[in-house]
This record gives sequence, structure tokens and C-alpha cells, in this order.
Amino acid sequence: MTAFVRNQWYVAAYAREVGREPLGRTLLDEPILLYRTEDGRPVALSDRCVHRRYPLSQAPSRLVGDRIQCGYHGFTYGTDGVCTYVPGQQRIPRTARLTAYPVVEQDSFVWVWIGDGEPGGLLPPRAPWLDSPEYTVVSGMEPIDCDYGLLVDNLLDLSHETYLHGGYIGTPEVAETPITTTVDEEAGVVHVSRHMDDAECPPFYANSTGIQGRITRWQDIEYHAPCLYLLHSRVAPVGSPPPNADGTDPHAFHVEVVYAITPSTGRHTYDFWAVARDFALDDREVTEFLHKNNHTVVMQDVDALNVLQKALDTEKPGYQELSINIDTGGLAARRLLARMAR
Amino acid sequence: MTAFVRNQWYVAAYAREVGREPLGRTLLDEPILLYRTEDGRPVALSDRCVHRRYPLSQAPSRLVGDRIQCGYHGFTYGTDGVCTYVPGQQRIPRTARLTAYPVVEQDSFVWVWIGDGEPGGLLPPRAPWLDSPEYTVVSGMEPIDCDYGLLVDNLLDLSHETYLHGGYIGTPEVAETPITTTVDEEAGVVHVSRHMDDAECPPFYANSTGIQGRITRWQDIEYHAPCLYLLHSRVAPVGSPPPNADGTDPHAFHVEVVYAITPSTGRHTYDFWAVARDFALDDREVTEFLHKNNHTVVMQDVDALNVLQKALDTEKPGYQELSINIDTGGLAARRLLARMAR
Amino acid sequence: MTAFVRNQWYVAAYAREVGREPLGRTLLDEPILLYRTEDGRPVALSDRCVHRRYPLSQAPSRLVGDRIQCGYHGFTYGTDGVCTYVPGQQRIPRTARLTAYPVVEQDSFVWVWIGDGEPGGLLPPRAPWLDSPEYTVVSGMEPIDCDYGLLVDNLLDLSHETYLHGGYIGTPEVAETPITTTVDEEAGVVHVSRHMDDAECPPFYANSTGIQGRITRWQDIEYHAPCLYLLHSRVAPVGSPPPNADGTDPHAFHVEVVYAITPSTGRHTYDFWAVARDFALDDREVTEFLHKNNHTVVMQDVDALNVLQKALDTEKPGYQELSINIDTGGLAARRLLARMAR
Repeated sequence: MTAFVRNQWYVAAYAREVGREPLGRTLLDEPILLYRTEDGRPVALSDRCVHRRYPLSQAPSRLVGDRIQCGYHGFTYGTDGVCTYVPGQQRIPRTARLTAYPVVEQDSFVWVWIGDGEPGGLLPPRAPWLDSPEYTVVSGMEPIDCDYGLLVDNLLDLSHETYLHGGYIGTPEVAETPITTTVDEEAGVVHVSRHMDDAECPPFYANSTGIQGRITRWQDIEYHAPCLYLLHSRVAPVGSPPPNADGTDPHAFHVEVVYAITPSTGRHTYDFWAVARDFALDDREVTEFLHKNNHTVVMQDVDALNVLQKALDTEKPGYQELSINIDTGGLAARRLLARMAR
Repeated sequence: MTAFVRNQWYVAAYAREVGREPLGRTLLDEPILLYRTEDGRPVALSDRCVHRRYPLSQAPSRLVGDRIQCGYHGFTYGTDGVCTYVPGQQRIPRTARLTAYPVVEQDSFVWVWIGDGEPGGLLPPRAPWLDSPEYTVVSGMEPIDCDYGLLVDNLLDLSHETYLHGGYIGTPEVAETPITTTVDEEAGVVHVSRHMDDAECPPFYANSTGIQGRITRWQDIEYHAPCLYLLHSRVAPVGSPPPNADGTDPHAFHVEVVYAITPSTGRHTYDFWAVARDFALDDREVTEFLHKNNHTVVMQDVDALNVLQKALDTEKPGYQELSINIDTGGLAARRLLARMAR
Repeated sequence: MTAFVRNQWYVAAYAREVGREPLGRTLLDEPILLYRTEDGRPVALSDRCVHRRYPLSQAPSRLVGDRIQCGYHGFTYGTDGVCTYVPGQQRIPRTARLTAYPVVEQDSFVWVWIGDGEPGGLLPPRAPWLDSPEYTVVSGMEPIDCDYGLLVDNLLDLSHETYLHGGYIGTPEVAETPITTTVDEEAGVVHVSRHMDDAECPPFYANSTGIQGRITRWQDIEYHAPCLYLLHSRVAPVGSPPPNADGTDPHAFHVEVVYAITPSTGRHTYDFWAVARDFALDDREVTEFLHKNNHTVVMQDVDALNVLQKALDTEKPGYQELSINIDTGGLAARRLLARMAR
């Protein structure tokens, strides 16, 4: 099992998922209750009543104003986790208090700090495209019955697009083109780049951009361990001018593919996925196409990782993997996660 | 896990469930076969054939007269558990014998003695309302996927009626009114009383008694550990006379709520429930209403305890509960069960 | 759990099941991929890609000519298990190689050698009736959620036909008639014979042979441990002449009942069953009747063994069985398997 990295920000939900209905999620084996106050502030508390451990996210537990009331015996807690009511007596025990988790709402996500103590000045990494007016976004979340390390492996090695996602985002060039991998140990970021100069244009891009013919296709991954994965994808017809020196790039199409990889338990993972594009912003057909196409791609990964986890569950201890050049990104990520977990 | 208390009587089934079809139940991890002889006597035997351990309650096992014939190879046993037939030979091994359990049919239940040796003169505790002509009864059984201790906790602390059973049997006064708890260590009985002088009348009582307006509501629990739970419930309009000195109580409505709590395995429990009333005896609408209403209440408990058990299954060792005044009954019951289990 | 016997041939599939779609089976805890080359040769390889352990039998893994391509990252292997392609680089690691299992196609089965090293000259045992023009065959395979030892027990002791298969193949005489058991330790074969001189004719034989009235019924079992079970069944009207000295037997009906018992995991077993007859060869009604009837019989065993395994799973360690004369065949098989496993 891939060790959990504590003292980090994790995506617990999309902002749109957190409202006036209690929502329960398990992050790094910790059960967490999410809801929003009447004035719109997200709250994250331990999802177990201190009395008999009933989940506060489970009906008939419910919000009473900004407080959460346990559905079993009525213990009630404020947004700071402090108990404000117990049944049958006036005195409230001093120890009746839920863990209140630091929360940040940013880039369409609700981030929760999992760790001992406070994040201090540390903020979650950014994915600004997800709520920028200059991008149109499709997104979703799929739970996977696997160790989160399998999803990290999957996303760091995109050669699998050719085989698992052929006919969607994969073409022969993805598997054929060598990658360059660098690791920023201090920042905790793995970079993997694959630049294809002359490649087939897969349906995902052909149908959304309207490009006919072959493309230049760049895949630049930034994995901010442990939770945030960014894939800067640049697509342009072969022969288009490169980006300008000032960073502008008017002749290419850009897609920012974002994954938040949140370990739930040792074999359950939340796979938050989003695709932000800087073209055809108001074209609903393109939006619907990309939503459906990328959901299909995500489900191909989900199915494969569910199968893979079950296969690994039956392996004898000490089984072997064989790694090659395409795995340098994934192996770098594993090393980084192992170091951060210590 | 709450330790099992052996050398006790347990309810294995309602009398009406035991007939000429073999019935299998597991009590305290012991698989038990129940059936009734041709002249109506209930029988309880070990539910495993001595030959290859096939369950005698499973088709095509079947009764042949008063004997049970294994559906796999035909080993046949009498009501005393002694084997009377084996295939392919005349000689029957002397050790071919099932455990025969002491059985008592009483108060609409089939009670089985689980323990070493015989019960001697010890009889099961009584719930005489359940087959008395002076009461009308609705009843049922629901299996719960939980430690039986969770059901004991649930029933000993009725403050949960206000939250889990609001709109059925709960009103604010149940959670608000303090309880008195006493324990008869010798008899193995926990008493918990809550007398509400001026309380809302919940739908359960309003619709069955016809009372309009507020009520005096008494809840007097007798928990005969480990299996039998009695709730003597007295309801009368506020201002009605109290019971007479001779015990008669003509101005009040009485409901005897009976639960038999039978541990099946460490995380499965049989929840036998019954509601006996001394009013509207022949009113079928009231009977149907109480059956449906109480079944709903029981299912609210079942759902909550299934959820709670799953939550507890993921707790780290050494997790904490916080107990308050309402828990004195439940904690007394836990101590009593622990003592009896030793 | 019954110990696995390695260094043996096991039936992995019917020949008809192995084709140009990858087929995954687990034998003795080893995941195995089966397919057929373009020129019809069956292939058995380890069913885990050496790279990240993805199952090669799982879509989108697929055959490319005679090679199997992993559906995750495209690693490709020849029929000898040697890797011929990896993504992103020309050099193929020398250790990239799947285990290739010895395979024999014989008597309608695909046999796979599970063990260390090669079978040498050792060939699988024979069941020649299954692809002989002198017999008509019905067959199928059912997985059972049980230790394979339970299926061996079942088949070696046919007294269960009377009870579990009454109305199909069982009659009172099967349970009543004593057996003779012999063991050929060197060949690893257990023989169990039961000759009934004057028995009811069960529907299985009455409807297929047309015999009316009582029969002579011989059951001669050869269990070639660990995998192949043969039941030579001879049925004739009472009073018919015995077989001739030269082995011919024109006055009787012969059915060769074949089971291949292949352990999958410690509690999953493949139950390959076949019924070959030497009469009514072209009668489709008889074929359909025997297929349906025997499938029902097999499912009665499957249901009973699933029930039995679940019952055994809850037994306390050191539970007892009681064996009698009918068990001599099963006990001999257990001893033989235990010796072979060592």
C-alpha cells in the first residue's frame, strides 16, 4: 500500500457538492463531515459524534442553522466543533468537541488540511483555470476501489493513452515518443514532458478544436504531490508557429487537464477530474462532447484500476514489477511520496 | 465486541415460526435447527450433520415424521439428537449424535438454553402480555448486522426517540426528562424510569388511543439481561388520576413493549419486537396502525445500528466514547453483561 | 483447506472455450491466460503483464496475430512468453518474459501443466469417450465456491445421489448398497465400485434408455488424483446377460460420466462435467434431456457445496467429522492427495 502523506491539503469535494445537506467523505482513513453555513462558508468536522460515534453525515442527522445535530441522540455542535447541546442535562462535558479541520475554498475545490496542527501559511496548490472566465470547464468525480498510488502511476505515465484510451485520446505517438522527467524535490513537484511534433489528432481534440490533419501535441505534466495533478496540453496543426517569447500562444489550442487524487482508505481513492479549455468557450456542443468523452476516458481508467487492484490483491508477497523508461515519472512520484510520508 | 453470556435462555424464534419446515438460526455462534414434532412439541438440535457438517436446516434436508434427515447423505436423527440411520450399513456409530438443546415455549416465544449442561429449574423470564387474552399484540423480527451490545445500548437509552424516531414515538420531552436507574445485581435486571408529567402525545399514541392534547407519559424499563427487554409504557391525558393503590389503573392506556435481543454472531443480532396494548383490543385499524408504525420505528433502529456498526468497524483501536447521564442505564447493562459473561 | 498438488496436469478449459478471445482462468492460485494461435494451437501464459501486473485476459488487452498485447501500456508477448514490444523505447529488457505453461489438447479438454519444470514424458490421464464417434456427449462447467476437496468427497461417495439427487439419478439402492474400495498408490488412482443387482431405474436412465422396470446398475469409479474422475456406469434390465469375456457388452447401456476437478483458489473450484453415452447416439431429444437433467444434478451439487463451504467457514478450529463405510473412497482420496501434495 502506498503510505499516506499527512500534513497536506487534500481536495475533499467540489465546491458545488458542499451545501446545506451534510456530506460525508473519508480522507486518509479520517471520516469527515462537510457542509456550508447559512452565509456560505464551508465547514469540515470530524464525522463521528463524540457520544456513541454515530456519523453526523447520516440521516436523520441534520443542520440546525449553522450547527450539526446528531440523528441518534441529538448531540449538537457548532462550526468550531464545540458541542452546544446534549440531551437530558444542562451541563455539557468540556471534552465534547469534534475535530474542526482547516478548510480553503479555491479553484472550484473545497480543500481540507489533513494533519497534526495547522497549515500555518501553507496554502493548497493552484488550478486557476477551473474558475477562470477565460476557460470553460467540464468536471466530475469518480471513486476508485484502489490504492491511490495506482492512480498516481496511471497519470504520470501517459503512454497508456495509446492502449487504454485508443479512439479517445490515445494515438500511436503517445506511446512511441520518449519523455523527459525532472523532479523539484523542494517544491515536491514532478515534471514529465512529452512533445510530439507530428502526430495523429485523436477524436478528443479533432472534434473539439475542428483541426483536420496532423498536429503538434505537447503534454507537460506537473504533479504537485500528493494531491494535485496538472496536465498542460497544447495542440496545434503541424506547422503552426510556436508560442511567443512573452508566453502568449495565439495559434494553438490549450487544454488544462486537472486531477485531484485524494486517498480515501488504503484501497479507495477519489478521482476528481476536470478539463478546462481556452477555445470554443460558449460552444455547448463542444462542452457536452468533452464532458462525455473525458468521462468515458476516466471510466476506462477506473475500470482498469479496479481490475488491477483486484489482481494485486491476489499477488504473493514479494511479487515483481518491471520498470522501463516510461516509468521514470511514476517512479519519481513514488519516491517523493515515500519521502513525504516519512 | 460485547462478550456472549452463556448458560442462559434465549429467544430463538416466535412460536409461529417453528413448524414442520426445518428452520435454521444461529445463536451465540451456534447453528441451531428448529422444528416441531407431529404432536406440536418444539425441538432444537445442532444444525450440522455429524458426518460432513451439512446444515440440517437446508434443503433437501427434511423431516421424516419426527426425525430430521440430512439432505446430503441421509443421516437421520431423532428429537433427542441420536442418529437412527446412516447409509450403506446397519451399525450406527455410538458417537453419531447431535446436541439437543433444552427448549421452552412460553409467551409466544421459543426459548432455547445456550450453555453447558442443563438449565436445572431455571426458566426463561416472562412476557405474559404476549399471549394474554387481555392484550392485543403486534410483533415481528428483524435481523441487524451489529453487535448485540449496540441494540442493548439503543433500548436502554430512549432519549434517542426524540431524534431517531421523531414523528413516530419521539417528542422533545423524552430527551429532556432525566431518568432514574437502578440495578438488581442478583436478579440480573436493570431498571430505567422516565416519568414525563406533561408531554406532547406522539402519533404512535395519539392515533391508537384517540387522546387529543398533552399527556402524562411513563416509561419504565426492565432489562432482564441478557435477552429480554420490557418497556412498561403508561399514557394518560394530563390531569387523569394516578393508578390505584391496588395496581389497577382504569384511567390510563398501557402498552407493553417487548424486545428479545438474541446475539447471533459477533456482528449479527436478532431483534424480536412486540407491542401489546390493553385498549381497543378488537380494533383492526389500530392493530394495523401500530404494526406499521412500530415496524417503521424498528427499521429506523435497524438502519441506524447497521450504519453505526460499519462506522465502528473502521475505528482505530482505543477510540473513545463520551457518556453522560442518559447513559447510566446502558452502562449498567454493559457492566452486568460483562459480569455475567465471566 | 485441501493442499494443492503441483507438478500435475489440470483441465483449464474445454477445447471449445479456447479461441481468439483471451480467456483468463486461475489454477491453483496461478492466473493463466488461454488463447489459440491463428493456426489453432492452444497457448497458456501467465496472465499478468510483467510491467504493472495488468491481467492480459482483460479488455482492452487483445491478440495481435499470435501475440498478446497488454491493454494498459501495450507490452506485447509471443506464444513462448517472450516480450516483443514495450512502449517508448527500442530495447526490450531481457527479463520481460511471461511463464509459458505446457499445454496438451486431449479428449475435448485443454490440459495445462502446473508445476516447477516440465512434465517430461508425463501425459494427462485419458477420457477418450469425450471425442469418440462411438459416443454422444453433453458437457459443461460450473464454478463452485468451495475447496476442491469438497467436490472430491462428493464424487467419491455416491450414496449422496439417493438424497441430494433423488428424482434424478438417486434411488434407495445407491445408499443401501455397500461399496468396495481399492487404491493404486503407484498410479495415484482410487477405485470405488458399487454393483446393484436389482434396483429402481431413476428418471435419468429410464428416459434416456427407454428401460421400463428394474435394472442392474453398476457404478465403477476411477479417480485419477488430483484432477480426473471417471464413473463407468452400466445399466441393463434385470436378467440381462453379463458382459462377454472379451469385454463387449451388447445387452447393456453404458454411460461414461467424466468430471475434471480443477482447484482455482483455496475456495473456488472449476467443476467440468461430461456425460458420454453409447446408445441413442443421434437422438436429439435424448441429448437434450441428458444435458438438462445432468446440469440440474450438477447444480444440486454446486448449491450443496456452496452451502457446505459457508457452514465450514464458521466452524471452530478442531471441529469433528464422523466417517463410516461409505467414506472409504473419499478418505482414500484425501490420503492420496495429501501424500501427492508433499
